Amino acid sequence: MSDFTQIRYEVDGPVATIVLDRPEKLNAYTRDMMREICAALDASDADDAVRAVILTGAGERAFCAGADLTPDSGAGPFSSDEEVEDLSDERVRDGGGRLTLRMFNSKKPLIVACNGVAVGVGATMQLAADIRLASDNARYGFVFAQRGIVPEAASSWFLPRLVGMQTALEWCYTGRIFGAEEARAAGLVRSVHPQGELLGEARKLALEIAENTSAVSVAMTRAMMWRLSSLDHPMKAHRIDSRSIYRLSRSADAGEGIASFLEKRPPDFPGRPSSDMPDFYPWWEEPEFE
Amino acid sequence: MSDFTQIRYEVDGPVATIVLDRPEKLNAYTRDMMREICAALDASDADDAVRAVILTGAGERAFCAGADLTPDSGAGPFSSDEEVEDLSDERVRDGGGRLTLRMFNSKKPLIVACNGVAVGVGATMQLAADIRLASDNARYGFVFAQRGIVPEAASSWFLPRLVGMQTALEWCYTGRIFGAEEARAAGLVRSVHPQGELLGEARKLALEIAENTSAVSVAMTRAMMWRLSSLDHPMKAHRIDSRSIYRLSRSADAGEGIASFLEKRPPDFPGRPSSDMPDFYPWWEEPEFE
Amino acid sequence: MSDFTQIRYEVDGPVATIVLDRPEKLNAYTRDMMREICAALDASDADDAVRAVILTGAGERAFCAGADLTPDSGAGPFSSDEEVEDLSDERVRDGGGRLTLRMFNSKKPLIVACNGVAVGVGATMQLAADIRLASDNARYGFVFAQRGIVPEAASSWFLPRLVGMQTALEWCYTGRIFGAEEARAAGLVRSVHPQGELLGEARKLALEIAENTSAVSVAMTRAMMWRLSSLDHPMKAHRIDSRSIYRLSRSADAGEGIASFLEKRPPDFPGRPSSDMPDFYPWWEEPEFE
Repeated sequence: MSDFTQIRYEVDGPVATIVLDRPEKLNAYTRDMMREICAALDASDADDAVRAVILTGAGERAFCAGADLTPDSGAGPFSSDEEVEDLSDERVRDGGGRLTLRMFNSKKPLIVACNGVAVGVGATMQLAADIRLASDNARYGFVFAQRGIVPEAASSWFLPRLVGMQTALEWCYTGRIFGAEEARAAGLVRSVHPQGELLGEARKLALEIAENTSAVSVAMTRAMMWRLSSLDHPMKAHRIDSRSIYRLSRSADAGEGIASFLEKRPPDFPGRPSSDMPDFYPWWEEPEFE
Repeated sequence: MSDFTQIRYEVDGPVATIVLDRPEKLNAYTRDMMREICAALDASDADDAVRAVILTGAGERAFCAGADLTPDSGAGPFSSDEEVEDLSDERVRDGGGRLTLRMFNSKKPLIVACNGVAVGVGATMQLAADIRLASDNARYGFVFAQRGIVPEAASSWFLPRLVGMQTALEWCYTGRIFGAEEARAAGLVRSVHPQGELLGEARKLALEIAENTSAVSVAMTRAMMWRLSSLDHPMKAHRIDSRSIYRLSRSADAGEGIASFLEKRPPDFPGRPSSDMPDFYPWWEEPEFE
Repeated sequence: MSDFTQIRYEVDGPVATIVLDRPEKLNAYTRDMMREICAALDASDADDAVRAVILTGAGERAFCAGADLTPDSGAGPFSSDEEVEDLSDERVRDGGGRLTLRMFNSKKPLIVACNGVAVGVGATMQLAADIRLASDNARYGFVFAQRGIVPEAASSWFLPRLVGMQTALEWCYTGRIFGAEEARAAGLVRSVHPQGELLGEARKLALEIAENTSAVSVAMTRAMMWRLSSLDHPMKAHRIDSRSIYRLSRSADAGEGIASFLEKRPPDFPGRPSSDMPDFYPWWEEPEFE
């Protein structure tokens, strides 16, 4: 992973950390950064030793101050010089959305440790994570309408799910900057911590997952929750969770889960997401850009 | 109803109460219990005198401590010895989901009075109820990933609707046990009460519904809210509520509703869910397991 | 606009205000009022000078006390004498839903300043607005089941999105009247204000939008949030926001957005919703009543 130039990817025990690493630019987002985060998620998905992924920013000022707009970055999601005839052209795809859709497909839990300013894509990329913690100096801004553009990164799908339509609209209509406590009260952020304790708290949560649960169970749970909750009838969830229970209850992980529970000891699950997902996984066909 | 062995079904005035009644086993869930609760819901739906249903557990320790895993129970939702070729086989169906889908189709409001520990299916079965009250000693746990399996009972559809995706994922990723106050703050539970007052509060709410509203209106409201809210456009709700208003505004219940309002007296609605639902009800085709 | 008889429509700078104006009847809803509000929304959509719309009631007692049930009003949404053969007949359409579906299609942000009693359609019409402020004497009631009818105005689609299923059902099952603070705690209302400050606060929010953001961005954001959030996969949002970013990032508004940001001055966006929406807008086909 040493060939990353815009991020760092570090694995410590069962926890991988992706650090947006352009602190002199407030970790501004570039196309290269997008590609590198996606590659890091490929790595965390492929590595059975990784049980959860923390996404954070370098330094104490910013998580990510938005897209890098400087002309020489060649990197802003909307700075492309390419002109297309057809809006279904792959080159039209928004760079923030490429990332959030990759996050949507992660097998591992994604935890954001928002360590400072999070504006534009710095805010919207967080929405596809599972759980968000913030430092008390974190600041958020869905500033797109102030820049003459619109919320991207599929945030019209993600944001109302997290904070409700009323708050989502107010934040996006005004583009105002708001603090960590408002983010917590609205449901965007799960908890707020002193800057010096933020990463420790994120890591504590990641370890709680790693030490107590089956990796296969968690990967299945992640796909089920994100994909089945937006369907139009609970029968569609019942079809998948029935199959899941049927297969997994006959797995080595279920045996270990019951045994460790009855023996009142920590579990040691043998299942590996790389090889032990149920045979019907993935049960969906991923939609294309079109 | 006297042939129930795992539950009690009691009707007192307009309120039916279903009591999970295996207190010596912390009301652990069995296939027989599932069948009996479904039969009790058939009874409450068929009985026009019943205006609301309370679901609670016997004793002061547990609502339901999850699936009964003891070998002699022959009853755990995932303890079946049957092997199937095809995962669309009816025998694959999860026992928790059979119950929550039956609850989804209830004509009567379902109120949970969670009187203690609610773990596994003891937690997920509550999600398909309309309103949840808890005693202050209630404890919840979506412990599935700790056991090597996954959340069942269509909870990937129900849980994020109640508490949002962020909280739903944290509870299911960690499998941790949490208390009544956390459940209330997250929106899982509507209110928390001293153990001795829990059933009285649940009954008070049931009576408020019974004494003030039309049974036909409430049955229609239940189906409309659960079914129309998850569709992709408000026009789909408009089609159904227009028809409902058109038919019901010409009904005897609407006459009584307006008359009692103008005369400032309690209403006495004549409509009966068994015979007076609008002619287009049910307007949907129930999906099958497949 | 001087031919309105049930409302007033006033434009002051970038803010239009629609006042339900039958204070002697507690602003009770009539078919004429419905047509006039829809006409006012046509006016606010067509007027590029209008950047946000406030909806409020005349007087200090009521926002809207529900449908006018007096026989001589000839106006209640369910007082029609017309009998139809076919429930897909256009005349079956609920008058509350005609309004909320028109609100759903507004290009401008809709802000409710709820200045008192809001019962029946007076409560449900607010649900299709974007943001709701309330005076401290506001009272809400989803009273339909007390009248022998059902929640209308597509509120089975709108209400659970705002307050979750549990609260939506309790309010509609009981039909009880509740105050501004309960409405705020549940997420129905964004903030509560003394009666004398309510309109000023609503106007302040409208001006914040007007002074800081692009009208085209806001119109696009409104359509994207309401329409894309209820779909079943974030790719569907990605398709639209990618096209939006692609087109708008090449617009004069984006140029002004970046220039004003870099120059640290208020923006002056040239784009007009009447002529400068992206070429693919609207990207949807509006469903019909059927």
